[in-house]
Amino acid sequence: MANSRFEYVKQYERMDRLLPETYIVIRIDGKGFHKFTKKHEFEKPNDLRCLSLMNAAAKVVMSEFTDIVLAYGDSDEYSFIWSKSTELYERRESKLVSHVCSLFTSAFVFNWTRYFDIPLLSLPSFDGRAVLYPSIFVLRDYLNWRQADCHINNLYNTTFWALIQKGGLTNTKAEEYLKGTVSSQKHEILFSQFHINYNNELEIYKKGSIWVRELEENESAPSKHQKYSTKQKRKMGLRLLHVSIIDNEFWNTRPYLSILLN
Amino acid sequence: MANSRFEYVKQYERMDRLLPETYIVIRIDGKGFHKFTKKHEFEKPNDLRCLSLMNAAAKVVMSEFTDIVLAYGDSDEYSFIWSKSTELYERRESKLVSHVCSLFTSAFVFNWTRYFDIPLLSLPSFDGRAVLYPSIFVLRDYLNWRQADCHINNLYNTTFWALIQKGGLTNTKAEEYLKGTVSSQKHEILFSQFHINYNNELEIYKKGSIWVRELEENESAPSKHQKYSTKQKRKMGLRLLHVSIIDNEFWNTRPYLSILLN
Amino acid sequence: MANSRFEYVKQYERMDRLLPETYIVIRIDGKGFHKFTKKHEFEKPNDLRCLSLMNAAAKVVMSEFTDIVLAYGDSDEYSFIWSKSTELYERRESKLVSHVCSLFTSAFVFNWTRYFDIPLLSLPSFDGRAVLYPSIFVLRDYLNWRQADCHINNLYNTTFWALIQKGGLTNTKAEEYLKGTVSSQKHEILFSQFHINYNNELEIYKKGSIWVRELEENESAPSKHQKYSTKQKRKMGLRLLHVSIIDNEFWNTRPYLSILLN
Amino acid sequence: MANSRFEYVKQYERMDRLLPETYIVIRIDGKGFHKFTKKHEFEKPNDLRCLSLMNAAAKVVMSEFTDIVLAYGDSDEYSFIWSKSTELYERRESKLVSHVCSLFTSAFVFNWTRYFDIPLLSLPSFDGRAVLYPSIFVLRDYLNWRQADCHINNLYNTTFWALIQKGGLTNTKAEEYLKGTVSSQKHEILFSQFHINYNNELEIYKKGSIWVRELEENESAPSKHQKYSTKQKRKMGLRLLHVSIIDNEFWNTRPYLSILLN
Repeated sequence: MANSRFEYVKQYERMDRLLPETYIVIRIDGKGFHKFTKKHEFEKPNDLRCLSLMNAAAKVVMSEFTDIVLAYGDSDEYSFIWSKSTELYERRESKLVSHVCSLFTSAFVFNWTRYFDIPLLSLPSFDGRAVLYPSIFVLRDYLNWRQADCHINNLYNTTFWALIQKGGLTNTKAEEYLKGTVSSQKHEILFSQFHINYNNELEIYKKGSIWVRELEENESAPSKHQKYSTKQKRKMGLRLLHVSIIDNEFWNTRPYLSILLN
Repeated sequence: MANSRFEYVKQYERMDRLLPETYIVIRIDGKGFHKFTKKHEFEKPNDLRCLSLMNAAAKVVMSEFTDIVLAYGDSDEYSFIWSKSTELYERRESKLVSHVCSLFTSAFVFNWTRYFDIPLLSLPSFDGRAVLYPSIFVLRDYLNWRQADCHINNLYNTTFWALIQKGGLTNTKAEEYLKGTVSSQKHEILFSQFHINYNNELEIYKKGSIWVRELEENESAPSKHQKYSTKQKRKMGLRLLHVSIIDNEFWNTRPYLSILLN
Repeated sequence: MANSRFEYVKQYERMDRLLPETYIVIRIDGKGFHKFTKKHEFEKPNDLRCLSLMNAAAKVVMSEFTDIVLAYGDSDEYSFIWSKSTELYERRESKLVSHVCSLFTSAFVFNWTRYFDIPLLSLPSFDGRAVLYPSIFVLRDYLNWRQADCHINNLYNTTFWALIQKGGLTNTKAEEYLKGTVSSQKHEILFSQFHINYNNELEIYKKGSIWVRELEENESAPSKHQKYSTKQKRKMGLRLLHVSIIDNEFWNTRPYLSILLN
Repeated sequence: MANSRFEYVKQYERMDRLLPETYIVIRIDGKGFHKFTKKHEFEKPNDLRCLSLMNAAAKVVMSEFTDIVLAYGDSDEYSFIWSKSTELYERRESKLVSHVCSLFTSAFVFNWTRYFDIPLLSLPSFDGRAVLYPSIFVLRDYLNWRQADCHINNLYNTTFWALIQKGGLTNTKAEEYLKGTVSSQKHEILFSQFHINYNNELEIYKKGSIWVRELEENESAPSKHQKYSTKQKRKMGLRLLHVSIIDNEFWNTRPYLSILLN
């Protein structure tokens, strides 16, 4: 029973190296979370316990992979933004995507009881994908896309659930009611009918969550062409924010991010 | 803040549909399990608790995905063999690999306490990959490769740890002692020095684990060109075996497998 | 000026090896042939000179690559069917597709004057693609698809041009006239209005062209598990046919084809 | 004989869209040119007729595809640099590579007699590949790599053939003689033994050939964020250069190139 006789089957494996010097975004999404949230009686429109658990799981991923520079999460999804020069796993797509997805899941299940009183009644799982962006400009538009999406969904959901929970409408009626309405009309419905000022909603709901590496106070950024060592990255803090990532301010106040991303 | 302004970034996503009518093998592997097993004081050369937990996690995956026909596991890896006609997720590679990997991880963490007294001290994670095989012949050689690998590794590990645990050798000395030895010599060392008949070792150690769908007793196989419906697949039993998958007998006694695989 | 300083750019090249043991079909298509045929005053609906030139170019390709077993051509396209075990250029997709396409073009331009009195007034060119088929069954359906397509197009074109050339209709009127007609109606139009029995049209128009390797008369096929050597393949004849490739007869009378394709 | 019955085979085709907003380099190489040059008695170390024919063929390609901004050729290879925003053929890799390769071949064969007295005795052919570069910096290093390669090969070949043609050495002896020599030593051999000042060799041999689009004299470059229209590109001149593309001067004197490349 020589092993070598069968080893030829390895030739069917494909080398799936991602294009070098290109930003890698790995986005994971909850599978079947509609059913999962129902079974575990999630609060609507947002469940702060789940968002906190998602953020805790994302922190584990960022702690493990120092080449991830920042991450953006909302609802049951999270996007991890990698330095374009990462050579982890020789940039092999399957390895990167599956490991991130697995570690996130591991942390999500392990930490469940820290955030929920109700025990896990079914197994949560996520899928993932990698997308490549060749320039910081398009990468930022990717993040803008996710944050804009968060806002649009949250405004809709906040109004939708107000109509149901406070307005006594059925799901179908609420859906019909909102059909074709624009942002300003949803703001108006919330304010005039339910005395809710959308602007006062929690920032985590409106902006989503951003994990970003931060310099220690007395630490100075390396000069433009310098790189941070893995050791330096490990020593950096991880900070959770719920701010606009679309505005330039986020980027302007963190010039070292472009060094980390390079 | 129109969302559509940023939506163009979706064009950077790639369609990674796997070649139709080809067997998909998804293999997952434990990440950094050397360290993980040390921290959780795994028994050597094999830890039955962990193998049982791996098998329990694999069962969850097979229960979820009815297009997986059988699975083979050994040590910290598991291979899932899909019907070549599966159209799940439009056969998109990232989705299939990451979801299998995530669900397996979820089940592994969730069920940990059912098998271990020691609590989880660090997070386990897995990576995954998909490999395509165009014919049943090569697919079987893939399974043969994994089972032959299991045997070779187990014989080595059994002898290696006997030399250490019963023979009092250091790891380095044991390694040197075994360098260049062939199978028969390892059998001889086990028997003459430690009175261990390798053939009497547990089948789960020597053969690994096979999950396979099984017909109910009174169920008849569909004729050659028929297909099993998803409902029929769900009703099938799942059976755990520790037998030779290299021998024809495994296949000859289960003619319905070729229908499930097609 | 050390070369090595720049050589890192080679890392951006991607290994595009096609899945082993899978049939490779390389299909090339004329680019902008509508304009090209007008400029060179091609006969309608079929120009025998061009079909003959296409066949001559395809023969050059088959003579160069002994791992091509057969080829099917019609109009301005040609499909080359490779043995599934070919390892030419390590099965690298770009190399295979571009070289076939280039050699075909080279032969087409070089041999133009053997078939046309009119000189080349603009440069002909072709594009190509590779498609993988994992089983002989689907591969045959690929060939069936192309030959069925040839028949459908030819019946339409024959009727369309009869309406114009003999019936005095304009292109637009002929198009309108044929809109929605089925096969039998086109046969009827040809016969009743123009006394053309479609069945008597040239087989090369109705069936397209097939290049196939053929055994010498006194040569015996190798037994099932034998392979033909490259030398044997070179010695085989190349035969041009205009027959049904959909019917089993083509395959049944050439049992050695399955050996060549394997 | 419904066509649709077989049309499912199209599902096996793969969408091979190249990552957007990334520079595409398509490089073609002569196949078996060692034999081809011998058969057609090419002059050594460089055959000006062939280089001129290569340049003529490359001009045809650049005239056809206005999204190619510049091209670099040397020996039997040519690299075509595309605007990173090209959407030709939806950026499908096979189509782009094979069509460029085919058109180049077509022009090469068609124009042969304009440059050679000797008729074509065997068919020339080329293969091609696409490589993606995500930044202008790496793209320039790609071009630097090819031009540095041209210089290194030409210095070697010039010395090698001087040793044979003027020094009376055999090929083997000349090879041995040059083994391990550095640039300066080759310069010295040429000068002291054969009175050849390498610096006086033709620039086309030392630098290779560059096709670049050029502005008409009275044409002003569009402002930074403007784009040239296809019509404007068609009206641009095509200029053949044999200069350093490694030096900044080439790029500094042509600021509009960065607009064309974007």
